[in-house]
Amino acid sequence: MSTITLSLAELESLIIRALTTNRTSARNAAQVAAAIVTSEADGLKGHGASRVPFYAAQANSGKVDGNATPECHEVGTAARRIDAKQGFSYPAMNLAVEQLSDLAATTGIAAASIANSHHAGAAGQPVERLARAGLVGLFFANSPEAIAPWGGNKALFGTDPIAFAAPRRNEPPLVIDMSLSRVARGKIMVAAQQGEPIPEGWALDADGNPTTDAKAAMAGTMVPMGDAKGAQLVLMVELFAAALTGSLFGYESSSFFEAEGPAPRTGQFLIALDPDRFSGGAFADRLETLVDAILGQEGTRIPGARRFALRAAAEQDGITLPSALHDEISAMAG
Amino acid sequence: MSTITLSLAELESLIIRALTTNRTSARNAAQVAAAIVTSEADGLKGHGASRVPFYAAQANSGKVDGNATPECHEVGTAARRIDAKQGFSYPAMNLAVEQLSDLAATTGIAAASIANSHHAGAAGQPVERLARAGLVGLFFANSPEAIAPWGGNKALFGTDPIAFAAPRRNEPPLVIDMSLSRVARGKIMVAAQQGEPIPEGWALDADGNPTTDAKAAMAGTMVPMGDAKGAQLVLMVELFAAALTGSLFGYESSSFFEAEGPAPRTGQFLIALDPDRFSGGAFADRLETLVDAILGQEGTRIPGARRFALRAAAEQDGITLPSALHDEISAMAG
Repeated sequence: MSTITLSLAELESLIIRALTTNRTSARNAAQVAAAIVTSEADGLKGHGASRVPFYAAQANSGKVDGNATPECHEVGTAARRIDAKQGFSYPAMNLAVEQLSDLAATTGIAAASIANSHHAGAAGQPVERLARAGLVGLFFANSPEAIAPWGGNKALFGTDPIAFAAPRRNEPPLVIDMSLSRVARGKIMVAAQQGEPIPEGWALDADGNPTTDAKAAMAGTMVPMGDAKGAQLVLMVELFAAALTGSLFGYESSSFFEAEGPAPRTGQFLIALDPDRFSGGAFADRLETLVDAILGQEGTRIPGARRFALRAAAEQDGITLPSALHDEISAMAG
Repeated sequence: MSTITLSLAELESLIIRALTTNRTSARNAAQVAAAIVTSEADGLKGHGASRVPFYAAQANSGKVDGNATPECHEVGTAARRIDAKQGFSYPAMNLAVEQLSDLAATTGIAAASIANSHHAGAAGQPVERLARAGLVGLFFANSPEAIAPWGGNKALFGTDPIAFAAPRRNEPPLVIDMSLSRVARGKIMVAAQQGEPIPEGWALDADGNPTTDAKAAMAGTMVPMGDAKGAQLVLMVELFAAALTGSLFGYESSSFFEAEGPAPRTGQFLIALDPDRFSGGAFADRLETLVDAILGQEGTRIPGARRFALRAAAEQDGITLPSALHDEISAMAG
């Protein structure tokens, strides 16, 4: 496969051009590009540059409003309600991070609901930013339908992520970022394209029965991590991300990939906590004690460590993209 | 097996006597008994009457301070830090529920950390009470070590529960309450006692390898629900329940069953949110829409429905206990 290597700054300005050429304000394009470049650098390619052609086409069609400015409403002394105005999620999430960083310093805990939003990207990013401001972050987002309620056969919930981050002393934050499907849908898509079977436990067919046939799986639903317990967690995340924000559930929302159709109007929910206040100043010591206990066992790692190592390497060596993807983004950038 | 059936009120007053006879204040005994009777009525027997002999013995030995009065400190306009003073968890959790119910009405979100605590019991109870006050609740607790960090072989984390509840219109709350081990440790204990094998995927041996030998599993660690992803969730819950409260991690705490040794000093973390504020008043409608979509599929159920059905039956028919357990509690009640 032919590839091309770009510096992070080169990729970022290319993405900004691809978006501003497609009915997106410079201010929003910069925020989208920064998030995508970070995902790509972190090795989270599903939220990286491969998204740009889809984003630009949706901005061009008006499915996502590239010129939207998110609105923030105070709905409690520790609560903010942000309307993403059917624009990209990143400007709304950045607004939430700014608001909560200030708020939590006096309230101890603060939260923002984000309504009328779009693809959240790498869920670890908003909580990482809170953690770099000394706060603990907890984040929920939903996405179009992929997972059925336990016992059922029709997908209602997305492969919704939970993310958590905590500040560490003299180290990058601990960052947990997981989608709640057992495996990424992309793995099943690849197996279906190649005519390969999938392991049992990844997916259910359209009747709700376990299947190893990747094509039947694509027509069915994804199995949640942790089976019945995981299905309850996905339900919880839908309630945070959609019900608590007044947004659409996975089964009501539209594709993050197709340029046609109504806006997805999914939601996000972000919580920030001041660890020193709640722990009486003990948090930093307690966290390092646990990290030492974990790393004292061979074969373990601290969540987030891999993405920061990859990010550092990408800052040094740049990012390698398939030439076809680079050409596609370049064509959209005009 | 010989059994005896008691009304909820009879069981409650028996438990109160068993505790007050064993160095526990009447005020605390009433709160412990109410929580235990509810767990028993809800079919959550692991947190029910079987705990009473252990609780009473620990109060008698001083491992748990039956006379402790939890202290509440304001550490932010939306934040409370509660010190359970090495007493039972229930008075501290009740104090947290009271404080947060008031607070969240103006702040939109509020949270309480609970330090120096003990067995949390059924994690669904504090969030259910918040939901009955019209709030959404999220709760984390930790417990003595059972689960290893992913890739490791020594247990650091408990089978820590996550609980969530949301108020419903004209129905009991939706209540999610799950421990994060794949199966309850009790199932492995029973298999070990009966010399039966266990299914692969339930537990690891002392070297961190999968085992179907129940005795090897008892000497090893429990597998988290959702494997590697679940292990990250358990880590997150330890950080909420222990690091954010300044309490002990699972591997540092002492048994909830043995009467000797230092106090467990585990922790709990409770968050309350006002759903109307965050959702612009849309929450109740959104939740009922999703409930209808779930129940429209055969074979599904709403989390919490089972416990409320059992509770209603127990209110009518009473609770049936093994006579041996009833005798043991009665003997402690003097």
